[in-house]
Amino acid sequence: MKKVNIPKGTRDYSPDAMARRRYIFNTIEKVFRLYGYQPIETPAMENLDTLLGKYGEEGDKLLFKILNSGNFLSGVEDEQVQQKDVARLSALICEKGLRYDLTVPFARYVVQHRNEINFPFKRYQIQPVWRADRPQKGRYREFYQCDVDIIGSRSLLNELELIEIIDRVFEKFEININIRTNNRKILAGIAELIGARDHLTDITVALDKIEKIGTEQVNEELRSRGLSAEAVDKLQPIIHISGDHSEKLNTLKNRLSDSETGIQGVNEMITLFNYLEDQNLKSEVELDLTLARGLNYYTGAIIEVLASDVQIGSICGGGRYDDLTGIFGLEDVSGVGVSFGADRIYDVLYQLDLYPDEVITGTRVLFINFGSNEEKYILSVLPAFRRAGIETEMYPDHAKLKKQMSYANSKGIPFVVLVGEDEIQKNVLTIKDMDTGKQEELTTEKAIRHVLGAHHE
Amino acid sequence: MKKVNIPKGTRDYSPDAMARRRYIFNTIEKVFRLYGYQPIETPAMENLDTLLGKYGEEGDKLLFKILNSGNFLSGVEDEQVQQKDVARLSALICEKGLRYDLTVPFARYVVQHRNEINFPFKRYQIQPVWRADRPQKGRYREFYQCDVDIIGSRSLLNELELIEIIDRVFEKFEININIRTNNRKILAGIAELIGARDHLTDITVALDKIEKIGTEQVNEELRSRGLSAEAVDKLQPIIHISGDHSEKLNTLKNRLSDSETGIQGVNEMITLFNYLEDQNLKSEVELDLTLARGLNYYTGAIIEVLASDVQIGSICGGGRYDDLTGIFGLEDVSGVGVSFGADRIYDVLYQLDLYPDEVITGTRVLFINFGSNEEKYILSVLPAFRRAGIETEMYPDHAKLKKQMSYANSKGIPFVVLVGEDEIQKNVLTIKDMDTGKQEELTTEKAIRHVLGAHHE
Repeated sequence: MKKVNIPKGTRDYSPDAMARRRYIFNTIEKVFRLYGYQPIETPAMENLDTLLGKYGEEGDKLLFKILNSGNFLSGVEDEQVQQKDVARLSALICEKGLRYDLTVPFARYVVQHRNEINFPFKRYQIQPVWRADRPQKGRYREFYQCDVDIIGSRSLLNELELIEIIDRVFEKFEININIRTNNRKILAGIAELIGARDHLTDITVALDKIEKIGTEQVNEELRSRGLSAEAVDKLQPIIHISGDHSEKLNTLKNRLSDSETGIQGVNEMITLFNYLEDQNLKSEVELDLTLARGLNYYTGAIIEVLASDVQIGSICGGGRYDDLTGIFGLEDVSGVGVSFGADRIYDVLYQLDLYPDEVITGTRVLFINFGSNEEKYILSVLPAFRRAGIETEMYPDHAKLKKQMSYANSKGIPFVVLVGEDEIQKNVLTIKDMDTGKQEELTTEKAIRHVLGAHHE
Repeated sequence: MKKVNIPKGTRDYSPDAMARRRYIFNTIEKVFRLYGYQPIETPAMENLDTLLGKYGEEGDKLLFKILNSGNFLSGVEDEQVQQKDVARLSALICEKGLRYDLTVPFARYVVQHRNEINFPFKRYQIQPVWRADRPQKGRYREFYQCDVDIIGSRSLLNELELIEIIDRVFEKFEININIRTNNRKILAGIAELIGARDHLTDITVALDKIEKIGTEQVNEELRSRGLSAEAVDKLQPIIHISGDHSEKLNTLKNRLSDSETGIQGVNEMITLFNYLEDQNLKSEVELDLTLARGLNYYTGAIIEVLASDVQIGSICGGGRYDDLTGIFGLEDVSGVGVSFGADRIYDVLYQLDLYPDEVITGTRVLFINFGSNEEKYILSVLPAFRRAGIETEMYPDHAKLKKQMSYANSKGIPFVVLVGEDEIQKNVLTIKDMDTGKQEELTTEKAIRHVLGAHHE
């Protein structure tokens, strides 16, 4: 047989995986809705000029580009083809690309629909994204993001709300988490303080790795990115400030007193932690001055969530961006949002065995098919089961009983109904509980009540 | 401002459209599950060798191809580039394409996972597909298909079940429909009978248009496709056989007595109509001998559904295929399935104003935000609303009352809560019913009960 396969880094989702994913998406979605967020969806394809230049040079390379249809070389000059400059040539033969994340399409959406939207706009979006990354364990070329954002409001109540949402979602999953937060304005203030104002990006990129590679190597990287030894030295006491968040913030308030931005960041975090104190969150929120998050567009609070009991990296994260729509010409629309990593949450729930038993639901009753007469009788009683809301099947072929029972087993069907001549004559059903093996002769009505009353694991 | 846009033929779905789509998908899905079908999903991208050659030459042209990442010209010889043979060149620089339908990926899935599947396999799949069609009214380059198939069983009970599912789905939508059915084997028998056995495809392609272009033009097309005048003449009385299905089938049984395939088709339809007679379907099922359906892979019963009250073409269709997995080397696995056209159903529901009022659900309570003191108080009562399952928001900014009320209106929020100094002192909430304009001062507990008890249109 020919070998059939799917592209590297992509996956098929079989019914069991679908049921678990449905549980994840439904749980997250329900919380989003409880806080007044509404769903949108955008097309898989965006124009390349919407996507290019938004994710850095590395990101541009990871975009999947779609070949123009028809004669894609028409309008391309021979010379351009012969030069074999693939970056330039790809721009000539591809107009569209697959979305790389949900944030840039969302910014594009907001700008395109700005006249229909009544701000602040609270939206969520659960869709796949595509990246031409080198596939490896836990890294896919197609994966889902679950984004929730509020755009058009500067209020820190939004940051509070998103942290509450995170707390609620993971409480429902029964995953213990640690929420870390920081503020880009504080980082900017620190960069000013150590005399490295132009190196903010270098600092965030390097700090982002502190967890993975340790302080020593981060310092090495900072020096190699052009920070003076003095600046790196000055940075040390700050990233290692000790105490709880209010002690840290007090210390920073003093040290950053010369930086307007820095003080603003400190005040924002004081307000946010004040809000948080009055809320009854299950998880702890920690001020982590080494938290930086790589993306350039963050300008205020940043948030990252780790699972306490599994080493898997961040399972949710996000932050405040003051000018994301600016890339499409709509200035001065501030927003804040977080993204839940569905694939990692899937793995955490699996590793900790936290999927509820009832997640995998399917057919509840299978009618065994012994032959044409039985079939006819079954067709007359079957509709009543479905009318009662019971997922019900009749095996479609007159196969051997063993085969039909093995079908029921493999599908995890809890009840099997056996109908032979005897049952037809008595107008009853023999219903077998697949867990206990117990068989009963019941009328249709009683059989339905029996199934509805059962709570199967 | 720069003009931002999405690719031609694609759409953004805003919250209202999302709510309507959710209603459609949920309704369809619920029925699928009631009959024991389970969901799967496949990647948006498939290897091009999975897709090419499966949809005819025209279909190949409509595939969206994905440019290989990295240096896509490496391994391509200068000569091949210079020849500018775009079909051949695209095969060299693109390995992957976006799926064109859900049927071929399903066949690929079945073959790839054949050892994990316990046949018969009942699956449904609701995902977008992409076609590089010329965009026009009602035709999109990205659209959703909802497919339901059972594979690995030849029983006609499956055809019956799919017709029942169709009946149930449209009953739930309250869309009146007309179900037409025919059988490819009957068409093959007819082709034999008129001496045009080799022209079965020509006959199906031409007959498919009889609704649109009329008998005369179909006959013209049949002649131009190489059928003799005699064959076309012989065809006329057959496609115009009158009577109900049993009269038609009786007539055919006589006329097709020399064609084994034809008789087999007639017998299949007799069995199917016998099954149907015992079922209590809401819709009529009609035997339509001019129904052909274009796709080559159908080999038995074919089904098509039209909305009775809107002229929009087929809103659901499908049929039996005996060898779909054969294209991937797995022989002898028969299946049958239908596909629901979500976009057209969306339009039909819209035109006939059949969306239930409760489809558009969102925030139920908005707390007006008058200032920092009020905010603090609201934060202390808000969680109780959400704990009660009520979708609740507080306006995040201290904006003018008018702006906040207009936000509530535009989002269709039925209750607004006003909290000022007075309410804080009395520890009550003023809750305003946005429909009636009536305001009441209630305790938090009573306000929650008030909202839960309300049935808003």
